Amino acid sequence: MPDNRRFLLVRRPNGEPVEEDFSLVTEPVPELADGQFLIRNHYASLDPAIRGWMDDAPSYMPPIPLGDPVRATTVGVVEASKAEGFVPGQWVLGLNGIEDYSVGVAGGFTQPIDADAVPSVTNYLSVLGAVGMTAYFGYIEVCEPRPGDVVLVTGAAGAVGSLVGQIAKIKGAGKVIGIAGGAEKCARLTGRYGFDAAIDYRGKDVRALTDAIRAEAPEGVDIIFENVGGDILDAGLMNLRHGARIGLCGLISEYNTLEKVGARNIWQLIVHRASIRGLLVADYIARFAEGGAEMAAWLQQGKLVADEHVDAGIENSFDAFMRLFAGSNQGKMILKIA
Amino acid sequence: MPDNRRFLLVRRPNGEPVEEDFSLVTEPVPELADGQFLIRNHYASLDPAIRGWMDDAPSYMPPIPLGDPVRATTVGVVEASKAEGFVPGQWVLGLNGIEDYSVGVAGGFTQPIDADAVPSVTNYLSVLGAVGMTAYFGYIEVCEPRPGDVVLVTGAAGAVGSLVGQIAKIKGAGKVIGIAGGAEKCARLTGRYGFDAAIDYRGKDVRALTDAIRAEAPEGVDIIFENVGGDILDAGLMNLRHGARIGLCGLISEYNTLEKVGARNIWQLIVHRASIRGLLVADYIARFAEGGAEMAAWLQQGKLVADEHVDAGIENSFDAFMRLFAGSNQGKMILKIA
Repeated sequence: MPDNRRFLLVRRPNGEPVEEDFSLVTEPVPELADGQFLIRNHYASLDPAIRGWMDDAPSYMPPIPLGDPVRATTVGVVEASKAEGFVPGQWVLGLNGIEDYSVGVAGGFTQPIDADAVPSVTNYLSVLGAVGMTAYFGYIEVCEPRPGDVVLVTGAAGAVGSLVGQIAKIKGAGKVIGIAGGAEKCARLTGRYGFDAAIDYRGKDVRALTDAIRAEAPEGVDIIFENVGGDILDAGLMNLRHGARIGLCGLISEYNTLEKVGARNIWQLIVHRASIRGLLVADYIARFAEGGAEMAAWLQQGKLVADEHVDAGIENSFDAFMRLFAGSNQGKMILKIA
Repeated sequence: MPDNRRFLLVRRPNGEPVEEDFSLVTEPVPELADGQFLIRNHYASLDPAIRGWMDDAPSYMPPIPLGDPVRATTVGVVEASKAEGFVPGQWVLGLNGIEDYSVGVAGGFTQPIDADAVPSVTNYLSVLGAVGMTAYFGYIEVCEPRPGDVVLVTGAAGAVGSLVGQIAKIKGAGKVIGIAGGAEKCARLTGRYGFDAAIDYRGKDVRALTDAIRAEAPEGVDIIFENVGGDILDAGLMNLRHGARIGLCGLISEYNTLEKVGARNIWQLIVHRASIRGLLVADYIARFAEGGAEMAAWLQQGKLVADEHVDAGIENSFDAFMRLFAGSNQGKMILKIA
């Protein structure tokens, strides 16, 4: 049997992760017990949420135990099996780890997927995976869109944000404004993803951001799909329309900070009788097939562009993960392992 | 005609209001034009929201113009009238100013009230006024209560908070926890207002507050009725149950601060798929009769205790208003003018 390279969490990051928090080790491939199957991981999904699982704090999922591989959704192929329903050669999707080989359990979270039904099997980690479903259900269910809404998407060039902007247009938004970092990303928002307007947050403080949003949405915004937090959320809060809905998907600006900023301008929620609602894709697992079908149709009809940024090599796990916070990825961040 | 003493806003407060921001002047009683009537103000409602109207900032109501009397809801008696439907001797309720005499306009916001239908005409400024309707509709409509809910009320000994706790019990809450400042207020919560538990916030930082709430609600809280903000809201956010609703009524801890703190722990909204929704009583004006009828019935049945704290004398306007922020009032703060 070949070796199993595993990217372990060996120390809890204090603020921004550093390389010493992790260790790439080589171990023997584990033996299978009855009911188990061996997965050769091909691709791992790198998501900001993983940063939260590295902390020893109460959350929607237990922390990654120290000494365990970094938890990630992967797609791979069944290599060997002592479990009914899983046969060698079959593609599977599951919440496993950044490692060459993971052990799956029948009845667990790993499920067979149809690799032939999609342009690339990586689509199961992006547009048809948690990222795509977060955009779909987060926008449609949590933001309660109405035709003609003015929609603000933050982190708009990211994997979730770029999909949200496109879904908003498909679903009848009046105007979709995206906030992203840098001229290149902003050009991508309006050029590639069909946003009506893009705001570059770089070099802008809360006041300048507030003014920039107001210039694009003089009457205020009906929906904010929030991925970032900090100054960007505070500026959004200063531009609410009556009854605005803020879907809180992420706060990437503070995942690596020790002091939480949160939302300083929540008094504006009172002024405009607006709301902030937290969203997590796990709530919609039972409806993934429904969301996946609609997203796949849009993809085939050319209505949806879903970019993926694939870095190769498990030895590059740390650098690839840190791209998420530097914003140097262009599309859904995926690590090619096999 | 007698003189008209008026408590004017002459300078916008910079943070905490000081006496020099106001001026008590004596002017002639104004002449009436056709369609107008003269109100002899007897009582003025002193509310935290008035502080917001003193700032020159976008809000749900225009700022109080400098040189105008401080805006307040008052009850008074029609003294003279050139307006149809308003006759001398009639009691009226309206958004006027802290002054002996205000001029009302037919078709404006001042309406006749039935002084004989209530134990005290001041009830129109407390339990049957904006304060009572804020508690009633804010809890029932914005917090979406369900039987058995664990409810946390902040600013619980205040005019709104003390009513919310009682309404929650009447409407079937499983446990109602109040947060207030000092042992005396806490004793009032459990003794007089029927809260199940009281937490004294004095001397407690966010961590200690978080632990104190957890001790009373080990499974978390379903509803927070938030009047305070700051550390108290942050501690509440650390104790949410899945799907918790936070009704954001006020943020009295930061009305006099220049730097807004807001809500630092909103990441917990994602963890628990919880929401914060701003509420303003003005949205429910059309339903005041409905809310007033139910509140009046509870009062008569002895199910509801509604305390009022009346300070006398327009010359004491500043000190009486500042009680709201010192928390030295016991019940709805009312200024007796006549």
